[in-house]
Amino acid sequence: MAAGSSIGTVFKVTTWGESHGAAIGVVVDGCPAGLALCEADIQTLLDRRKPGQSKFTTQRKEGDQVEILSGVFEGKTTGTPISMIVRNLDQRSADYSQIAGCYRPGHADYTYDEKYGFRDYRGGGRSSARETIGRVAAGAIAEKFLAALNIKVTAYTRSIGPVEISGERMDLKEMKNNRLCMPDAKAAEEAEQYLEQKMAQRDSVGGVVECVIHNLPAGLGEPVFEKLDANLAKAMLSIGAVKGFEIGDGFAASVSCGSVNNDAFRMEGDTVVKATNHSGGVLGGISDGSDVIFRAAFKPTPSIASPQNTVSKDGKEMELVIHGRHDPVVVPRAVVVVESMAAITVMDMLLLSMTSRMDMIQLFFQVEEVEP
Amino acid sequence: MAAGSSIGTVFKVTTWGESHGAAIGVVVDGCPAGLALCEADIQTLLDRRKPGQSKFTTQRKEGDQVEILSGVFEGKTTGTPISMIVRNLDQRSADYSQIAGCYRPGHADYTYDEKYGFRDYRGGGRSSARETIGRVAAGAIAEKFLAALNIKVTAYTRSIGPVEISGERMDLKEMKNNRLCMPDAKAAEEAEQYLEQKMAQRDSVGGVVECVIHNLPAGLGEPVFEKLDANLAKAMLSIGAVKGFEIGDGFAASVSCGSVNNDAFRMEGDTVVKATNHSGGVLGGISDGSDVIFRAAFKPTPSIASPQNTVSKDGKEMELVIHGRHDPVVVPRAVVVVESMAAITVMDMLLLSMTSRMDMIQLFFQVEEVEP
Amino acid sequence: MAAGSSIGTVFKVTTWGESHGAAIGVVVDGCPAGLALCEADIQTLLDRRKPGQSKFTTQRKEGDQVEILSGVFEGKTTGTPISMIVRNLDQRSADYSQIAGCYRPGHADYTYDEKYGFRDYRGGGRSSARETIGRVAAGAIAEKFLAALNIKVTAYTRSIGPVEISGERMDLKEMKNNRLCMPDAKAAEEAEQYLEQKMAQRDSVGGVVECVIHNLPAGLGEPVFEKLDANLAKAMLSIGAVKGFEIGDGFAASVSCGSVNNDAFRMEGDTVVKATNHSGGVLGGISDGSDVIFRAAFKPTPSIASPQNTVSKDGKEMELVIHGRHDPVVVPRAVVVVESMAAITVMDMLLLSMTSRMDMIQLFFQVEEVEP
Amino acid sequence: MAAGSSIGTVFKVTTWGESHGAAIGVVVDGCPAGLALCEADIQTLLDRRKPGQSKFTTQRKEGDQVEILSGVFEGKTTGTPISMIVRNLDQRSADYSQIAGCYRPGHADYTYDEKYGFRDYRGGGRSSARETIGRVAAGAIAEKFLAALNIKVTAYTRSIGPVEISGERMDLKEMKNNRLCMPDAKAAEEAEQYLEQKMAQRDSVGGVVECVIHNLPAGLGEPVFEKLDANLAKAMLSIGAVKGFEIGDGFAASVSCGSVNNDAFRMEGDTVVKATNHSGGVLGGISDGSDVIFRAAFKPTPSIASPQNTVSKDGKEMELVIHGRHDPVVVPRAVVVVESMAAITVMDMLLLSMTSRMDMIQLFFQVEEVEP
Repeated sequence: MAAGSSIGTVFKVTTWGESHGAAIGVVVDGCPAGLALCEADIQTLLDRRKPGQSKFTTQRKEGDQVEILSGVFEGKTTGTPISMIVRNLDQRSADYSQIAGCYRPGHADYTYDEKYGFRDYRGGGRSSARETIGRVAAGAIAEKFLAALNIKVTAYTRSIGPVEISGERMDLKEMKNNRLCMPDAKAAEEAEQYLEQKMAQRDSVGGVVECVIHNLPAGLGEPVFEKLDANLAKAMLSIGAVKGFEIGDGFAASVSCGSVNNDAFRMEGDTVVKATNHSGGVLGGISDGSDVIFRAAFKPTPSIASPQNTVSKDGKEMELVIHGRHDPVVVPRAVVVVESMAAITVMDMLLLSMTSRMDMIQLFFQVEEVEP
Repeated sequence: MAAGSSIGTVFKVTTWGESHGAAIGVVVDGCPAGLALCEADIQTLLDRRKPGQSKFTTQRKEGDQVEILSGVFEGKTTGTPISMIVRNLDQRSADYSQIAGCYRPGHADYTYDEKYGFRDYRGGGRSSARETIGRVAAGAIAEKFLAALNIKVTAYTRSIGPVEISGERMDLKEMKNNRLCMPDAKAAEEAEQYLEQKMAQRDSVGGVVECVIHNLPAGLGEPVFEKLDANLAKAMLSIGAVKGFEIGDGFAASVSCGSVNNDAFRMEGDTVVKATNHSGGVLGGISDGSDVIFRAAFKPTPSIASPQNTVSKDGKEMELVIHGRHDPVVVPRAVVVVESMAAITVMDMLLLSMTSRMDMIQLFFQVEEVEP
Repeated sequence: MAAGSSIGTVFKVTTWGESHGAAIGVVVDGCPAGLALCEADIQTLLDRRKPGQSKFTTQRKEGDQVEILSGVFEGKTTGTPISMIVRNLDQRSADYSQIAGCYRPGHADYTYDEKYGFRDYRGGGRSSARETIGRVAAGAIAEKFLAALNIKVTAYTRSIGPVEISGERMDLKEMKNNRLCMPDAKAAEEAEQYLEQKMAQRDSVGGVVECVIHNLPAGLGEPVFEKLDANLAKAMLSIGAVKGFEIGDGFAASVSCGSVNNDAFRMEGDTVVKATNHSGGVLGGISDGSDVIFRAAFKPTPSIASPQNTVSKDGKEMELVIHGRHDPVVVPRAVVVVESMAAITVMDMLLLSMTSRMDMIQLFFQVEEVEP
Repeated sequence: MAAGSSIGTVFKVTTWGESHGAAIGVVVDGCPAGLALCEADIQTLLDRRKPGQSKFTTQRKEGDQVEILSGVFEGKTTGTPISMIVRNLDQRSADYSQIAGCYRPGHADYTYDEKYGFRDYRGGGRSSARETIGRVAAGAIAEKFLAALNIKVTAYTRSIGPVEISGERMDLKEMKNNRLCMPDAKAAEEAEQYLEQKMAQRDSVGGVVECVIHNLPAGLGEPVFEKLDANLAKAMLSIGAVKGFEIGDGFAASVSCGSVNNDAFRMEGDTVVKATNHSGGVLGGISDGSDVIFRAAFKPTPSIASPQNTVSKDGKEMELVIHGRHDPVVVPRAVVVVESMAAITVMDMLLLSMTSRMDMIQLFFQVEEVEP
């Protein structure tokens, strides 16, 4: 806690940068040595969050080209901190006089001013969505690490406003075919229509991102406060615009019954498995070997083109009309952020889980016989 | 992270103890010196979580008498760690042979075994609800601290299964009049009927706890990872049986529109206030001066009296019938745990927020003029 | 940092308790599951620090019987926090009015009052040497863990005032034959004479404790801030009365030359070894496989029977004569504290070092082939 | 601990970068908002550590121009992370084949290889002295912060090999007049002669840096593990080549007596002061209002021009002659590093100390009367 720009213990991610400063970046410390890594690995993930990809995302043209400045040598991580930077190319001196002097509803303008006494008012400053560039760059490393252990993290849009994907139609390959990252072609089409309608009304919408972690070993999570689901919840709520988190059946479990919600154990060959997965892959805060499944709820984009009531910095009530293009929904671009934060969290907890058992530690240090 | 039994940075809480060990306890470090504190302050809160209070909670008779072992001198905290202990009186050598040898569905038996190689199988060990005694004892200190700053944390049962309180009928005083901690007499009555019915079916139910933090100053929360809501989410998901968290409108925000969800600012005398509170008192992860409102979703109690399919430790499929009395719903006893974890989280973040501003720091250290 | 009563990351030790409170204790979190542990393991180490063993240590009769309250089941650690407690038997209501009202020179009375506004004035409160009971109880666990990996930590008295052990005569077995824990019979005799003389003068003396960690693998330490030697230095300076730390040649290295101070590498069979060990087993903050050797300098006991000038709490200059028996030297009882803090530090860094390398991690998780 | 490139809790410093990578940098998180800061503030301190300043320091020409990339807006810190970067201009592709294949005595080559499986062998990689650029850049911010509270940190060379400054001749202004940063003209002259002689012998020397923190309020330090002196010790030992730390009389206290070593309290007007300062400004790990004085011992530069015995990576014994220019002593350039690490440590502990007392917290939050 405290200095708030770092997350993780043995795999520690520190982001920095404002939307309209010189650059945005991240320092990733504690990545094990010997992981193959190059800038293209990072860029691939960054490209998934970058704007200008559709009419539903802001048209600002940003290269968002990442540069790795340290921690990689001859194509492999060295175990030392990996510093990554993305220059802000689009720093045109816009006219911020309007938003500098008042508090946009739904934004962090007021709270930053209250907390720090003043703020960098250019484009949201530190509370801008551009801060997530650092998260995604770090997430790319975590996903690469997890892939080397056959663990796969996949996030996708579950709903846009009231339009939700259907379990029956769900097909992960489909999410690349639409601009909303929905793994359901029909839902994507309906959601696009819904969005068009809301944009025409100068309004914005929210949605839900779902994430699945596949092939995670049992044993991750450190009771009683550093539970796997507790850290996933924190990671999700740390993303701007997220207002809710649930794992497995989540809020639906609160209206279910024990006889339904309990997942029966059974054997699959020599392996203990669960007949269902209402728990979402976590029991007692520790991964149980099933898929980890969770959801994050995003509020509607606060920047809307309609007039809003607010107050100025000097305490006068006023009407505000926000100019410029803004995403009518943050969800499609947030999908890769959710995936990144999940990968970062899981990587840290996986490394921590290595210290749980005496027998495994003795094996690790190749202690064959202890001297009497 | 890491060693998982501590939470907090400047106000740090470390719990310890298993349900059927010698005792349960907590060490509270970083409590400021000079706070009036006695055992009765702790006991009052502990008594709210203790079982045996109604037919809906287990009948095990436990005194749960807390003893303060350190950190308090002449009725005031000294700034040194406050160690508190509750002896486990009810350690009768029950027959645990059945649950020792198999994995109860919905419990953490299997994951503890996978993580640690074996487990203390007596009554759930560390994953038992008795672990929350330490949290509530620490929460009592945090609530006392917050009260000294006029900040009030209040949790209550929002729903039991499908039975939810009504906003119109809601009356906080009412929650002391029913055993379900519901601030709505009519809902409490309906919920009791629903519970009776489920108990007759040898089944269990879940529910939702809601919590309001009143009079919290603006400025708490450390972007971008140590946001106030992110830490509340982690604190809630760290409670056993919690499967979801939402702040303000939460998941409902995901189906709302910006024009509705944005809270307009307006003036109330010299003070900036919000016309509505869809955000739940947090903007950009920082408290905005409104009431902080959040909810935690609890799954149904996993221990049910009906037969369940599971597997034994040696890999045989089997049918399990759990004997003994168990709460058909954990929610009423969890209310004070939610309140405690909220108080602990808020106290830590409030102390951390003192270091945000240069002008306030100079004032604190009474620096009048800096030497050139 | 922050709440200051915890140390360590994956192996975390939290001490609590004042000298004249109800009890003294410690919570040890993050100890791997499956380590054989019983109260006798702890008691053996505690008995090495307990007073009343010779005329050079205070005569206060304390049982200092440790009780393990959690984290151990059927003779093995469970991976959950291990809570240990020692009741303070000797809480006779002494007359503290004198020291309550003034600041003893060399003690922490004044600084506690300044920091916290008031203090527990009974026998030093939290700054008493009794606080080290918790450290030694935790150290006993760490030493047991390290022994299971064939790693041995040994501390001994290197000097009492000006009387130092001789490298030629040094014999570790000898330290059990004298009350000063000196591994040199002749030096011990001289030191006893020196002490007698200082006691007759109502004065006190200091000394140096040396510690050797044998069979530590190469690779412990996390550059650039969490270096092995940096954490050992912090651990030592955290012990009351320690005023200096050095590793390997330490301060002597500052007057040496590179041609002498550099340890040449050579082969011993297939193993890289060092021809000398001026570095004290650490290069670049990482263990190099040689013995780790360091020293901690202790100041003279501040409580002396001679009159001293000081001031009262209400700002009057006065003369103070401290009554009661006090150790004329803290070093012999501090030996086991140094050893414990070293073991705690090394255990934590050893667990952390498991996450350094990708190849070892893949081996640990038995990843044979990564899916394409 | 853990990911080792961060230090501090509320004021957190994370360094990154290798000597021959693209750049070196640091992220400073938790700096309070509203501190006046510009690149020149940083550059002034950086220039004090940069090489090429005398014949005793390496001739490598480096601009070491710092760029602030975030966290500063309109000339003031914003409370968000301050990212600073220095490009490595001198990345000529030297021939590292010799040092790539063997282990330089006294360097971290062997331990990095053992820990990480391989290393960035170019110029020491992460263990290079260039890593301290990040520390000094952060230290510049900490010194600016402390200056705003009238606190002053000053480090200087106390000794070069056997040549020590004299207390009588000591004059802080003098340190700018010689290349060794010695506040004693005569000692500086003698030290230069000593150095010339050792350089002629193709050898290197060590030395001691002393640091004084003036005007520090009483009350900094969090017993029992986060003591002020414990954290200073860790900060110092985290600097490459430091082998010892002492505060106040340090090791000399171990041969002193209580009657001498105890600092008597007396009144100076209304203020409690100490008649002497053997303790070095710390009692019980908490600052006592006197000057904090400590020393760090540096070993001789490991890179010497004489032939040395070592082994190759493939396990063959060999003789190594290190080519190129190297500082014959690191001390003069390390002075500003010691000062920076002291400032970083003190700033963090000062911010933490704000949470110690209930009365001060109520004052901070302007709580006038608590509602009953």
